[in-house]
Amino acid sequence: MSLKPSLHWLLVFVPVAVVLRIWPVLGGDVALFVCCALAIVPLAGLMGHATEQLGNKLGAGVGGFLNATFGNAAELIIGLIALSKGLTDVVKASITGSIIGNLLLVFGASALAGGAHYRELRFNRSAMRASMSSLSLAVVALIIPTVFHITADARSAGSRAASEQNLSLAIAVVLFLCYICVLIFSLKTHRQLFRGGLQSGKPCSDDEVSWSRARAIVVLIVATALVALLSEFLVGTIESVRAQLGLTEVFVGVIIVAIIGNAAEHSTAVMSALKNKMDLSLGIAIGSSLQIALFVAPVLLFISHLFGAPMTLEFTLPEIVAVAVAVQLAFQIGGDGETNWLEGVQLLSVYLVLALLFYYLPPDATRH
Amino acid sequence: MSLKPSLHWLLVFVPVAVVLRIWPVLGGDVALFVCCALAIVPLAGLMGHATEQLGNKLGAGVGGFLNATFGNAAELIIGLIALSKGLTDVVKASITGSIIGNLLLVFGASALAGGAHYRELRFNRSAMRASMSSLSLAVVALIIPTVFHITADARSAGSRAASEQNLSLAIAVVLFLCYICVLIFSLKTHRQLFRGGLQSGKPCSDDEVSWSRARAIVVLIVATALVALLSEFLVGTIESVRAQLGLTEVFVGVIIVAIIGNAAEHSTAVMSALKNKMDLSLGIAIGSSLQIALFVAPVLLFISHLFGAPMTLEFTLPEIVAVAVAVQLAFQIGGDGETNWLEGVQLLSVYLVLALLFYYLPPDATRH
Amino acid sequence: MSLKPSLHWLLVFVPVAVVLRIWPVLGGDVALFVCCALAIVPLAGLMGHATEQLGNKLGAGVGGFLNATFGNAAELIIGLIALSKGLTDVVKASITGSIIGNLLLVFGASALAGGAHYRELRFNRSAMRASMSSLSLAVVALIIPTVFHITADARSAGSRAASEQNLSLAIAVVLFLCYICVLIFSLKTHRQLFRGGLQSGKPCSDDEVSWSRARAIVVLIVATALVALLSEFLVGTIESVRAQLGLTEVFVGVIIVAIIGNAAEHSTAVMSALKNKMDLSLGIAIGSSLQIALFVAPVLLFISHLFGAPMTLEFTLPEIVAVAVAVQLAFQIGGDGETNWLEGVQLLSVYLVLALLFYYLPPDATRH
Repeated sequence: MSLKPSLHWLLVFVPVAVVLRIWPVLGGDVALFVCCALAIVPLAGLMGHATEQLGNKLGAGVGGFLNATFGNAAELIIGLIALSKGLTDVVKASITGSIIGNLLLVFGASALAGGAHYRELRFNRSAMRASMSSLSLAVVALIIPTVFHITADARSAGSRAASEQNLSLAIAVVLFLCYICVLIFSLKTHRQLFRGGLQSGKPCSDDEVSWSRARAIVVLIVATALVALLSEFLVGTIESVRAQLGLTEVFVGVIIVAIIGNAAEHSTAVMSALKNKMDLSLGIAIGSSLQIALFVAPVLLFISHLFGAPMTLEFTLPEIVAVAVAVQLAFQIGGDGETNWLEGVQLLSVYLVLALLFYYLPPDATRH
Repeated sequence: MSLKPSLHWLLVFVPVAVVLRIWPVLGGDVALFVCCALAIVPLAGLMGHATEQLGNKLGAGVGGFLNATFGNAAELIIGLIALSKGLTDVVKASITGSIIGNLLLVFGASALAGGAHYRELRFNRSAMRASMSSLSLAVVALIIPTVFHITADARSAGSRAASEQNLSLAIAVVLFLCYICVLIFSLKTHRQLFRGGLQSGKPCSDDEVSWSRARAIVVLIVATALVALLSEFLVGTIESVRAQLGLTEVFVGVIIVAIIGNAAEHSTAVMSALKNKMDLSLGIAIGSSLQIALFVAPVLLFISHLFGAPMTLEFTLPEIVAVAVAVQLAFQIGGDGETNWLEGVQLLSVYLVLALLFYYLPPDATRH
Repeated sequence: MSLKPSLHWLLVFVPVAVVLRIWPVLGGDVALFVCCALAIVPLAGLMGHATEQLGNKLGAGVGGFLNATFGNAAELIIGLIALSKGLTDVVKASITGSIIGNLLLVFGASALAGGAHYRELRFNRSAMRASMSSLSLAVVALIIPTVFHITADARSAGSRAASEQNLSLAIAVVLFLCYICVLIFSLKTHRQLFRGGLQSGKPCSDDEVSWSRARAIVVLIVATALVALLSEFLVGTIESVRAQLGLTEVFVGVIIVAIIGNAAEHSTAVMSALKNKMDLSLGIAIGSSLQIALFVAPVLLFISHLFGAPMTLEFTLPEIVAVAVAVQLAFQIGGDGETNWLEGVQLLSVYLVLALLFYYLPPDATRH
């Protein structure tokens, strides 16, 4: 995933963010939040690019695995920091936000951008369908704990916390094992399906300058450290920014944090669509959703158990409706292997409607 | 949309209805209701035919736009009259009733009628899929305000009326803008997809006698005025008819009013299927649903704000389930470009099951 | 459906089960339950095989009808016995369990087994889609009574029992009539679609030794009688087994009873997939689900009315979610006519997640 020259300039916000953190100025937390967000974007892009370069050096198999595991490292890091501060709801909201952001915002923006130049945008149907059914599995897994909670609540007054945690943990294990199967499928047994680019995670685009292994490793380590630092600042400001702008925690997680964590990928996907390379675009969008649902979410849940504050896979009704709707629409629109500008508009419209829903929703005072 | 000779005789009910309104007779309101219903059917057909003829005179682009905008004029008029009398629930029920009536009753009756004569009925898959994804967007838009209401209710005791109205208004704007994009798509950029007949609204069938422009305009104005008058009578009787027959407001809206408003189109669709012209049939069914969801519903909501009694897009759970089910089934059955008599039976069965649900449901005393 | 030599040996459990019933031993009810379960499996297989042989003798039309009607005789018998003992919830749970077991467990195991040997498994798309839309109709029919119950509860305090029973009865009639249409479609008007094997009920596989008519009838009668006897024992132990193993009635119905009733078919389906005969595998899986939903469920409901303890088609929320999810996933994965080992893993994972849900759910003390 190459970082277009136009995004490198955002790196200037890295030192600006550090400075703002040490010397708070007028506009305090909101300014710091914005600077951190703007700084994370190019860093996430550099992490992705370094991972890809390293993968090229180490061979297709390992490369694919690296891309698949570290492709969403930025979201993973932000999620870990948020978990350590106990912001479980923001973490869960950013999981759903990443999924619907990729399936609706990225897919839609790509279809609209590409469709404005090309009458029909075609892509590999089989690879698309293989990925979509994994996503459907993920949606089911995300729905079930909430169905359990609703049903158990209606049936008995006893505490179900232990059962809920066990159920969520078991489901997370199933999702993780499925992810490993997806890797085996796309990197080993059915590799030829994904030659166009829809690899489980990151598509391979070979049109940038090659980095040396040393350079890739150094960039990866430095960028990761900086993303961790800036995430620490960012998550620290979420509470006051939320209060100042009058937004709810869920809106911040679903829309804002999700967009920040995925922004670099978004730009690459749209750029690819403009060149009629929809396989690449969809590879980023669908692959990223897959990683979030089958890898990042389970890993965050496992780690939350290590932190001693176990997370469950129980989401709110609006989050579940949003994810189910996004997967359903993406399947309907993408399942036939072709798209156009109107379908892009429809996907973006659905994203807008969901964003409006989360914007207007009052905060949840009784969150568990 | 030509009016088959067999429907012209229903025009006799126009004077009958006027007479019944002035001199109520035994069987009073029910007889008046039935006569108005029977009289509106041929008038709606004449309105459609006049619109089509006018469109032919004014060129394909304007013609398509006219068909697209005035194709469901009858439902729009009935809806406006009902809104002015404060029957908001009947209006919303007739919106959902029109959608499921077109997707299940018309689609099913056409598939059954055509399938009884032809082993396989084929139609343009791409046009079908383009329309279906617009409908999915509409279903999402119809679901979201109710999701908001359920969630907001569970979270706080405060009044959410203002937020609900804003959310519904914003969503209506999104739907309306999408409708304009659909028009641009089907009338300008991807016109060739719809040559078979699935235009956004009304298919063009060129096998009737051509009318002069003056004749078309006169017929359109007279028919529209008569439909407005008869709708005024019809809506005025809904309350007492409902009470006399022991039906609920929702059943009257979803099944009865929806069928009345769409009856002329239904007959044309079934006639076309009998001649194995499924593109025409589905053009009417899907196109009509699209117009109701993306044009008529938003326009009625905007006008309700002008009336000072703002409508929301909040529907009851059974209505949401009905619409979601109808769109899902129509997508499954129509998405492969071919159908047969069994699929027609299945669509009609689902419509029957939904009608049974609305028939048995008790009235909603706490409707907001 | 041939009974592989490897299952005949299970017949030894028939006399063992009878003995255990007369002389209870240590491990009492659980041992009896297990022996009955193991004994029913080969008997169900023999019933299926005898039905098939009889069908071959009596001609394709009658044969298909026989297969279609008696293909799930084992589940029908178990259901009747359970109904007679008033275990309505177990009956309903085993209906949903049979549907999700066929669509997820059988389909998934077949895809995984076949996919481990063949890169791509292909099957007839049209037959698959025709069956899937019937299943979607069935899911709708199963959802509607519960939607009615939820809505009616929220609206009024009055008793709705009579309306619920009438609604369920009417829906059951619609389903049954649909089943007859499905039979006419697959056995008469569109027979050629199903030549590969996806008959409405049981696929015809001609590679076993032919039985005489007399032999087939005798085997059928004897096996049916034994299944009835063993079901009587089995259902009698459900309560105490459930209590001893700490399982809920719903889990026993959805997972355990459903697997027992379908085990013979499961093995045939997996065997067929190993020979890359996916049409046969899916014929068993989808056809069996269809029979359960459109034939067995309505018939059990009609008979419950004769017993004077009318059953409704009202299911719990987890059961509805499970069935909707199973049909949706099977449609997504099967709708394109090809599958692979990863899709098999996904289907099995969803089944596992649903089983975990039912395992952890607390019992429903207020079941109606």
